[in-house]
Amino acid sequence: MDRLMYNAGEMQRRRAACTTIIRLRSVMPDDNAPLYDEVCRHAQRTALLGSISELLEWDERTKMPPANAEHRAEQITLLAGMIHQRETDPRYGEQLAELAQGPLAADPQADVAVNVQHLRREYDRKIKLPRSLVEELARTAVLGQQSWQQARHDDDFASFRPLLEKTIELKRQQAEALGYTESPYDTLLDEFEPQERTATVAGVLASLRDQLVPLVGEIRQSGRSGDVSILQRNFPAAAQEALAREAAAAIGFDFDRGRLDVTTHPFCCGVGPNDCRITTRYDERFFNMAFFGVLHEAGHGIYDQGLSAEQWGLPLGQAASYGVHESQSRMWENQVARSRAFWEHFYGRAQEKFPAALTGVSLDDFYAAINDVRPSLIRVEADEATYNLHILIRFELEQAMLCGDLTVADLPGAWNEKYRNYLDVTPPTDREGCLQDVHWSSGAIGYFPTYTLGNLYAAQFFARADADLGGLDEQFARGEFQPLRDWLREKIHRQGQRFSGAELVQHVTGRPLSGEPLIEHLRAKLGPLYGISH
Amino acid sequence: MDRLMYNAGEMQRRRAACTTIIRLRSVMPDDNAPLYDEVCRHAQRTALLGSISELLEWDERTKMPPANAEHRAEQITLLAGMIHQRETDPRYGEQLAELAQGPLAADPQADVAVNVQHLRREYDRKIKLPRSLVEELARTAVLGQQSWQQARHDDDFASFRPLLEKTIELKRQQAEALGYTESPYDTLLDEFEPQERTATVAGVLASLRDQLVPLVGEIRQSGRSGDVSILQRNFPAAAQEALAREAAAAIGFDFDRGRLDVTTHPFCCGVGPNDCRITTRYDERFFNMAFFGVLHEAGHGIYDQGLSAEQWGLPLGQAASYGVHESQSRMWENQVARSRAFWEHFYGRAQEKFPAALTGVSLDDFYAAINDVRPSLIRVEADEATYNLHILIRFELEQAMLCGDLTVADLPGAWNEKYRNYLDVTPPTDREGCLQDVHWSSGAIGYFPTYTLGNLYAAQFFARADADLGGLDEQFARGEFQPLRDWLREKIHRQGQRFSGAELVQHVTGRPLSGEPLIEHLRAKLGPLYGISH
Repeated sequence: MDRLMYNAGEMQRRRAACTTIIRLRSVMPDDNAPLYDEVCRHAQRTALLGSISELLEWDERTKMPPANAEHRAEQITLLAGMIHQRETDPRYGEQLAELAQGPLAADPQADVAVNVQHLRREYDRKIKLPRSLVEELARTAVLGQQSWQQARHDDDFASFRPLLEKTIELKRQQAEALGYTESPYDTLLDEFEPQERTATVAGVLASLRDQLVPLVGEIRQSGRSGDVSILQRNFPAAAQEALAREAAAAIGFDFDRGRLDVTTHPFCCGVGPNDCRITTRYDERFFNMAFFGVLHEAGHGIYDQGLSAEQWGLPLGQAASYGVHESQSRMWENQVARSRAFWEHFYGRAQEKFPAALTGVSLDDFYAAINDVRPSLIRVEADEATYNLHILIRFELEQAMLCGDLTVADLPGAWNEKYRNYLDVTPPTDREGCLQDVHWSSGAIGYFPTYTLGNLYAAQFFARADADLGGLDEQFARGEFQPLRDWLREKIHRQGQRFSGAELVQHVTGRPLSGEPLIEHLRAKLGPLYGISH
Repeated sequence: MDRLMYNAGEMQRRRAACTTIIRLRSVMPDDNAPLYDEVCRHAQRTALLGSISELLEWDERTKMPPANAEHRAEQITLLAGMIHQRETDPRYGEQLAELAQGPLAADPQADVAVNVQHLRREYDRKIKLPRSLVEELARTAVLGQQSWQQARHDDDFASFRPLLEKTIELKRQQAEALGYTESPYDTLLDEFEPQERTATVAGVLASLRDQLVPLVGEIRQSGRSGDVSILQRNFPAAAQEALAREAAAAIGFDFDRGRLDVTTHPFCCGVGPNDCRITTRYDERFFNMAFFGVLHEAGHGIYDQGLSAEQWGLPLGQAASYGVHESQSRMWENQVARSRAFWEHFYGRAQEKFPAALTGVSLDDFYAAINDVRPSLIRVEADEATYNLHILIRFELEQAMLCGDLTVADLPGAWNEKYRNYLDVTPPTDREGCLQDVHWSSGAIGYFPTYTLGNLYAAQFFARADADLGGLDEQFARGEFQPLRDWLREKIHRQGQRFSGAELVQHVTGRPLSGEPLIEHLRAKLGPLYGISH
């Protein structure tokens, strides 16, 4: 019972000095080795600092006493500064430029070339932003979020308006500094979905909207609905956790290389190649929140756990994009865990865990309840079908504000009008309207579309996997998830950033991204439930 | 349910940029402000990195999936390198030298002067060690611990001998590099107990030994012993945790600014001024391990929580020494939680928590059991009285090896002889003898005496507090611990490193360190239990 087990820590630290050297050596290629090695070491050490920051954030949101918040913020700030310095180090930039012109770049498909190209792209993006703008964006994000919190609390959009106007103006300046050929929004989207174009996404999403709006209308007019009261009975948290762990492990989340903890706003984070942590929250009066939340985060986690450990910290060992990441969580949550086949396998276990709530409830009624579709006001509470309409509204509005087609002053009216048009609901207050999300207040513009891109990718990947593997439903009904997981690992996880999201869809499915697979998935599932054509 | 709650983390990070600036400004004095400010900022940022490393170690030993060990070691190594670089930065050294000669040093008792003097002392110590020696020590520590683990497993001291010889030789070189006037051991002791002299400690410990050996002999000859089987009944872990939390909170560990978690080798660590984390392990067949372990760690934690938050990361906001830290843990564990008065208050609660084990067990029998004294072979399992003899043996042997009075080859024989002389027991194997502790294999020589210094400080501080506050036993019996805690906070915690351990004892108790208060404490407690004179 020592003050601090002095020696255990020391031993790790010293042993690590050796393993670090061994690991860094293993990534060296034959040509240009010293330079490429140096660049990789630089990038991997930056990623190592990043993974420390991830742990600080995980801890802050799961374990840390709230009284320590200020100190934690200082720790994270210090690391952020160090990371930024390394990312924009001029010598590193020169090395990347030299490598990109050297013999390694001869074969652009080679691993070395892929890594160098991506690292250089990230570097170029970082150094284009003037320091004064970065600082102004950071300051405005702090003030913006404070203002937004107060405005949402007071339901007072006018008080938030000046900061949102300033944010939009700064994001325009950011777009100008980064440079673009078609739309300033391209540069913002690129932060979350690298190499994606606004025009492409807008086309796909408009076509999706044109099919989703009538689909939701048909569902509404059917007069049918799932009996969601089934899901609002008493579901003890301990039993919820047990069932969620069992299901997450069954689909392939490796608890020997990860954890599940409780938090307020669930997330998934990677603290190392063998340490992926997912989180959830339990509502004892609502089954869906924790169960589908865990399956969603486990989907993110399975992606992280499937990345190449050898390429850790380099582009080939990193997720392709926010959208592709979201596709993995959504697929396991929706295509898998909201399927009837999945529950043919798991429903018996659920009834065992929750005898008071589910005894006497038929599988059909349970299945209808977890797939209930109904237009609503709040994005984070939306179902699988209407969720994308919430995203479309935000995507259209943030583009319009950025391009000057919509003033911030007119945002509440435009918001409410779109909710009426797409979802046939009207927010009674801005708190339940355009003040509901934190994103814009923090400067995160270009983030929203990745949610729906994730749903589109998921549907298109899943349709292909189903064709490749034949009869996924039958496998799910037997509790077999490894074939799908292995397929995803090979086709998607192991690719890292070899392909952009759009390229990956083309490469894996042989077709460009389209809204069709998602619409087909929704119609195939919802048609029978709501008695509408599919 | 986002991939990562992008905005929450960003917000913290950005807000932190402001708070860091505010905090750093607040430590600025009036004179020499820019230079002193710069030095403090440097030291506090180094400490900030250190606190990140503490979290990495806490997480590794409480939450991390073991599969992530290699990556964690790399993270800790990276930070250790950064910390070392900052600690030995020549510019920082020049600034410290300049400050030490400036007007700030005019009043050596002033806060500014105390901080500068200590920072300079640490800096000078670090730069005296040649890099080649630091690396050789680190390498040997890794190999030494690996060799020791294997040797202990095989009970084969001969296989460990070469590495221990090398370690001793390197520690001699370290002592030479650091420089000393009396004994090379001074420089090693100084790492853990700054400014303490071997001769002083040796004198106090020899006098302690001369009184402890006969005391333990008397106890042995009394033929009496506590009925420890009471403590080996069934104590469910959940109830142990509940009782330990209740007691830790009662003595003053602030759970709003800290945590209690489970680990293999219990420890206490500070992750920030408002985030002190203690750990324990539960043995359902042994009451003492978790309960007294938690009270011990809570004692460390109360010290950390009592340090000055304004001086965080500077000498005046740091613990005085390993020995003083240990005094706080030992006092709450032994002087308080092993007292009869403490259990007059808590025994009823213990019986409620463990009805199966403790119903029908009298307070007297329980009290005798938790204070059972019996000579044994293993340090970490030793009782309050014999523990110090285990330490004395190690202190004498490591000095003898360092000074060349004992060869490593002769260690096992010398070890066993001392165990016979002091404790009247003979280790049947080296595994239960000189191979039982990790310390020497990792190069930690000079650490052991701080355990007993802690016990001595604890007894001497406690006697003074009892005199100052009058009737601590009566307060404990009423469950009142705040007067003692407030006394410790004012006299010890708030002083930071203003005084060395020895100076602090003199300052607080008006007398130099002595073995008498500990012997008096033990005789007063054990006399009645064993029917011996006190």
